Amino acid sequence: MKCLSCQASYESRDSGTCKECYEEANETEEDRKREIEDLKAKVAFLRFWSPFDPQHLSRPNGPCFTDVVLVASSDDGSSSGPPVPVPAHKAVLISRSPVFKAMLENEMEESRSGTIKIGDVSYDALRTFVNYMYTAEACLDEQMAYDLLVLAEKYQVKHLKAYCEKFFVSKLNWENSMLSYAIAHQHNAKLMLDAALSVITDNMDKLTKREEYAELVEKDPRLIVEIYEAYLSKQVNTAAHKDSSMKS
Amino acid sequence: MKCLSCQASYESRDSGTCKECYEEANETEEDRKREIEDLKAKVAFLRFWSPFDPQHLSRPNGPCFTDVVLVASSDDGSSSGPPVPVPAHKAVLISRSPVFKAMLENEMEESRSGTIKIGDVSYDALRTFVNYMYTAEACLDEQMAYDLLVLAEKYQVKHLKAYCEKFFVSKLNWENSMLSYAIAHQHNAKLMLDAALSVITDNMDKLTKREEYAELVEKDPRLIVEIYEAYLSKQVNTAAHKDSSMKS
Repeated sequence: MKCLSCQASYESRDSGTCKECYEEANETEEDRKREIEDLKAKVAFLRFWSPFDPQHLSRPNGPCFTDVVLVASSDDGSSSGPPVPVPAHKAVLISRSPVFKAMLENEMEESRSGTIKIGDVSYDALRTFVNYMYTAEACLDEQMAYDLLVLAEKYQVKHLKAYCEKFFVSKLNWENSMLSYAIAHQHNAKLMLDAALSVITDNMDKLTKREEYAELVEKDPRLIVEIYEAYLSKQVNTAAHKDSSMKS
Repeated sequence: MKCLSCQASYESRDSGTCKECYEEANETEEDRKREIEDLKAKVAFLRFWSPFDPQHLSRPNGPCFTDVVLVASSDDGSSSGPPVPVPAHKAVLISRSPVFKAMLENEMEESRSGTIKIGDVSYDALRTFVNYMYTAEACLDEQMAYDLLVLAEKYQVKHLKAYCEKFFVSKLNWENSMLSYAIAHQHNAKLMLDAALSVITDNMDKLTKREEYAELVEKDPRLIVEIYEAYLSKQVNTAAHKDSSMKS
């Protein structure tokens, strides 16, 4: 027989679908492609150019009708000179974050002064954070993903939090799994937590030899207990699965 | 053989794909589904609640930091009482429409006064137009689609124009094809124009009997010429296609 997709001949034991299902799948694929194109166009339409957009940087004095500034304030006083303010629109902030919404709608100090101080954050991280609220995009490395995860958690920007978690999960390996696990725990990052736990429980034989193991036992033993609990539950599940497949 | 998709048995003449292609297609489908989910989440994140959002209507005095109003002004003076202003954010308008961008950034009358007059439009259409710029969504019927198409063309909101065109194309039939064709022509709606022309040239035998035909010959004969040109080019193409398939 000849495969309608790759055009190669194949034996009957290598057969996949019947013609009808092949044609149906093809149609579905076309529909999905069209849906993806439509959604991409929608994203492009809804995305804002933010106040840092190249379009605006090229004419820095052009108005962009911002009505609030965010200021990074490091508590350690390490920065030299006054902090550079990040301009933004109240309408954007309140639409992306329930925390900013409460802050700006309820005539708190920040709303009156038009200045929001953000503690313990670098200018770069703050700028990237604000830019994300306009564009739903950010260029991440480990440090930036961590900084944004903290900000996303603090200001309840769920979409950004998921974005950072996905970045960490894509970089996950045995070497960084314990650190990722601890970070995920600290910031309620469920997706990242489950992925890190899965890597750790796949390597239980090496667990106790790791430096971070001894550190965590000392500093936060509950986290270690949770690893053992996850491992145990995995073992029980695997056993049950084996058992049921032997019976069937 | 048994189809891996529908599980039914089939004869070799009804075979579709080999197993490898089936599995590959399945993986691609999973990827596409995930991409669609991601894009939908992005759209939900980037979408604004507009100043008419139920969330705001429920607390009409809550601030939403609008800095401009749009006013529908019918030239025929048929409306009773002063027009109801539609509040909006300059930042949203300039990010969705190059016309509003030029108007508001260049310190024109509209920017100084904070009021933009929109001529020849009903309050409902204006409100739906502004709402679309926040949400990329609108509930359409023929009249609303027409009003929005005109506004989208005037203010160069391409995404909305495509949205209206798709609506008209979805409703297209022989009965409304001549009207759709004329509208598409008047507003440079390429997608709608091609679709309408295709319906018309499929029914050329009935064309001259239509009332609109005589009207158009009288009012704008160039449009009728274009129909004949499209028909001729279709015939030539069909002949060339038949010719080449007979040779092969």
